[in-house]
Amino acid sequence: MSLTGQNFIEGTLSGQGTKTFLAINPSNGKELSTSFYEATQQEINEAVEKANEAFSIYSKKSGKEKAEFLDAIADEILNLGDTLIERCCAESGLPEGRITGERGRTMNQLKLFANVLREGSWVDARIDTAIPDRQPVPKPDIRSMQKPLGVVGVFGASNFPLAFSVAGGDTASALASGCPIIVKAHPSHPGTCELIANAINKAVEKTNMPKGVFSMVHGKSVAVGMGIVQHPLVKAIGFTGSYKGGKAIFDAANNRPEPIPVYAEMGSTNPVFILPNALRERGEEIAQGLTGSVTLGVGQFCTNPGLVFLNDDASVTGFQEKVSQNFKAVEANTMLNSGVKSAFDSGIKNLSNKNQIELLAQGKESNEGFKGSAHVFKTSAKYFLTEDSLEEEVFGPSTITITADSKDELLASAKKMKGHLTATLFATDEDLKSYMDLIQILEQKVGRLIINNFPTGVEVCHSMVHGGPFPATTNSRSTSVGTGAITRFTRPMCYQNFPQNLLSDELKDNNPLGIFRIVNGEIKK
Amino acid sequence: MSLTGQNFIEGTLSGQGTKTFLAINPSNGKELSTSFYEATQQEINEAVEKANEAFSIYSKKSGKEKAEFLDAIADEILNLGDTLIERCCAESGLPEGRITGERGRTMNQLKLFANVLREGSWVDARIDTAIPDRQPVPKPDIRSMQKPLGVVGVFGASNFPLAFSVAGGDTASALASGCPIIVKAHPSHPGTCELIANAINKAVEKTNMPKGVFSMVHGKSVAVGMGIVQHPLVKAIGFTGSYKGGKAIFDAANNRPEPIPVYAEMGSTNPVFILPNALRERGEEIAQGLTGSVTLGVGQFCTNPGLVFLNDDASVTGFQEKVSQNFKAVEANTMLNSGVKSAFDSGIKNLSNKNQIELLAQGKESNEGFKGSAHVFKTSAKYFLTEDSLEEEVFGPSTITITADSKDELLASAKKMKGHLTATLFATDEDLKSYMDLIQILEQKVGRLIINNFPTGVEVCHSMVHGGPFPATTNSRSTSVGTGAITRFTRPMCYQNFPQNLLSDELKDNNPLGIFRIVNGEIKK
Repeated sequence: MSLTGQNFIEGTLSGQGTKTFLAINPSNGKELSTSFYEATQQEINEAVEKANEAFSIYSKKSGKEKAEFLDAIADEILNLGDTLIERCCAESGLPEGRITGERGRTMNQLKLFANVLREGSWVDARIDTAIPDRQPVPKPDIRSMQKPLGVVGVFGASNFPLAFSVAGGDTASALASGCPIIVKAHPSHPGTCELIANAINKAVEKTNMPKGVFSMVHGKSVAVGMGIVQHPLVKAIGFTGSYKGGKAIFDAANNRPEPIPVYAEMGSTNPVFILPNALRERGEEIAQGLTGSVTLGVGQFCTNPGLVFLNDDASVTGFQEKVSQNFKAVEANTMLNSGVKSAFDSGIKNLSNKNQIELLAQGKESNEGFKGSAHVFKTSAKYFLTEDSLEEEVFGPSTITITADSKDELLASAKKMKGHLTATLFATDEDLKSYMDLIQILEQKVGRLIINNFPTGVEVCHSMVHGGPFPATTNSRSTSVGTGAITRFTRPMCYQNFPQNLLSDELKDNNPLGIFRIVNGEIKK
Repeated sequence: MSLTGQNFIEGTLSGQGTKTFLAINPSNGKELSTSFYEATQQEINEAVEKANEAFSIYSKKSGKEKAEFLDAIADEILNLGDTLIERCCAESGLPEGRITGERGRTMNQLKLFANVLREGSWVDARIDTAIPDRQPVPKPDIRSMQKPLGVVGVFGASNFPLAFSVAGGDTASALASGCPIIVKAHPSHPGTCELIANAINKAVEKTNMPKGVFSMVHGKSVAVGMGIVQHPLVKAIGFTGSYKGGKAIFDAANNRPEPIPVYAEMGSTNPVFILPNALRERGEEIAQGLTGSVTLGVGQFCTNPGLVFLNDDASVTGFQEKVSQNFKAVEANTMLNSGVKSAFDSGIKNLSNKNQIELLAQGKESNEGFKGSAHVFKTSAKYFLTEDSLEEEVFGPSTITITADSKDELLASAKKMKGHLTATLFATDEDLKSYMDLIQILEQKVGRLIINNFPTGVEVCHSMVHGGPFPATTNSRSTSVGTGAITRFTRPMCYQNFPQNLLSDELKDNNPLGIFRIVNGEIKK
């Protein structure tokens, strides 16, 4: 399958613009084949208008029909075979095993949403039946359910070129809920994006969906993304990426004549607290696990543990020594692109330049391609309490161990924190008993609280929350991973005194879909 | 019970400021007894800090405990007896029957939320159990549920001095979900607010809740409200009122260092479409109902039908004549306050000054107090399509009949519309068949779509959606009336690998509360 470098407007290739760009192989810094056409505003407008036309058809598709569509996307992704794996590895610098695994995760995610659609209860159907003779006024028949918002703009991330990209989480939840999408392809892996776009288009055709349900535009300029965000027919945005990018989109969306919701997942430093007994009893094992978690995928995970809190104790030094040994043995590995690599290097430089921060150890170095070298630093909780920048993400294989002089200092550090995606405690039962106050503080700071597991590895399941208070995301009231995300692009819609034939199946008296509903206050099938 | 005019900080009276104001009886324009102390920033800070302290206790209360608290508030409101009814009538100009009814509605609303808490399934508990031997990596135990956001600021409306005020909808949903509140008392009915604050405080004591769970501050200045919105410990805002007020709060909340969600319900003009057969067959009955709906409560409802679309037809003139007759017979009635009255008068003046708008009829006039006179205008859909201001709310007993030359013009008018709370169709079965496209357009514009009922009268029930796309609200993804509002001040929170004893009852293996949960993808008790 050869790449065209063009934009996908309603299933049709389009390359009207004059600006083009090339993908770079981060393993060797060399340009890859195929020029990609940056979309013009006219192409963006066309894509959005076609999506809006498709909305009136697509939003009426049954759960079963949408499930078949999602399953077909998964199948067509698999059908891309090695072409996908090869291009994706070349564009991301990620190893084949990882990309093959990520492909499986991306497919499973689509299939999991398909299952939720087949079951059908996710729409939160509510029925209050009429009481015509109620005094002083009759009670009307009222019914409500979740309905799709309209056209959704999806911005994928560079670090998961499949699972958080063109057919990633936001695409799955938008399409599942009945929203057409315009994807802004990530310029770091545009060829991968084109291959996946082809797969989605095949699924559109195979399951007879309106073609406007999916469009994708390329672009390295901010203008392309903002062209989507500011289009009046776009009704919501899903984004995964940097704080700077996410916040700019959030601000632009709020300043539109009609503000729209933005679900921007902007990463975090995911504090880990290793409590005293756990440190004493399992310090070596935790040190090893921590090194793995920090350096997995060259540290390029939103849930990478960037802050490790310790309570001062005889075992702290031994732990730090063990971590240092482990870090020194870590090979330098290829980072996603030159931008990620240079941001990582400058983050490391910033930390190294602070007098109060000491480098504990550095992994192996390499000048080949864009390889990042693992770093572990140490500092005091006293310094953390005075220096806000330590909470800023250094995206890559880096972490800081932070030692508190007392439990109070540990609690103060937790209290000072802004929002994060996760927080983790390594703790024995005894530790947990003594640190209930820490748990209560952390519950207010994160979307996922973990005991004795590392935060990397975000399970795609029903209960996952990949989100958290600002600045981890711009909307803590949702998740970007797991089936709970199906309502992020919906709103409740109420129908009063509607005849049966005009109601969606979900709201009909005889419950033809057999879903759970709230009928006059009672939850039942 | 005599009024003090003071602020309520954590159950204690406080009047530190120097600015005071008086309530005015809109029936006669005279000042009512008791000076009210505008809160200082110091008082606001104290209230928020106490609320935040209370959060750690209140957020852990069981559903049953919170239900008892809400029930107790309802009981204590009733215990205020005639004192409440008299002061509320004096401050609002609304008749006794209406206020008594609104008291019942306010109490029922609290009790309905209490029932939802006792049932317990609203938390959306999700459990995915561990698979330790899964390949290539073990599956951890993951559980999630809705948890309260933190301190909520509540801004009540003038037009429902009980149901959308101190113990109104936003208070009920915030307290039900586990959030402490700071209420900004409405300066139009501060005495009513004080009485209700007393009732809530009694309920706090009776059910042994932390006192900081409820505070209330007075103020006529914008600074008091903004002092709440901009306080870093405030995590969400509920507001009902004008577009200007709601949008200013929304912008301020988004521009905070930590942006927070704002649920501002800012009203709308609630378009009504009377389709041809319905107009022919039931024109007279609809004309009468419309007059009642427009002039009910002196037109001071968010769901007041301010735009009435007709398709040109021989029966249009007869309908307009009938509406005119009805309007002419409507008595002038007291509006809520001088601000509402003068805004209404200037809205009427603006409409009257437009050449393309004709006054069809005016109700009776009166110069006593702040009485508003009913108005019905007429214009063409052609004009509506060119003039944006017709969609702006004229808060009071006023409406415009708008005649379209064709179905296409009617559809174009619907397409042009911004977001509204409701849209209504009067239609026969035949009309509905011919106007499916209109229904589909309106579904994108509103939160509640009604057939053959008037939009006034917002039922407090499980399926109600009192919300809608911007500018009706700043967040179409929620409702401010009905039990669906219970999640507006919550977010999903995820617990990974937690021991049973640290989980909330909602997430424990043995399901001690007997609630519906999603366990490994299956919905069950």
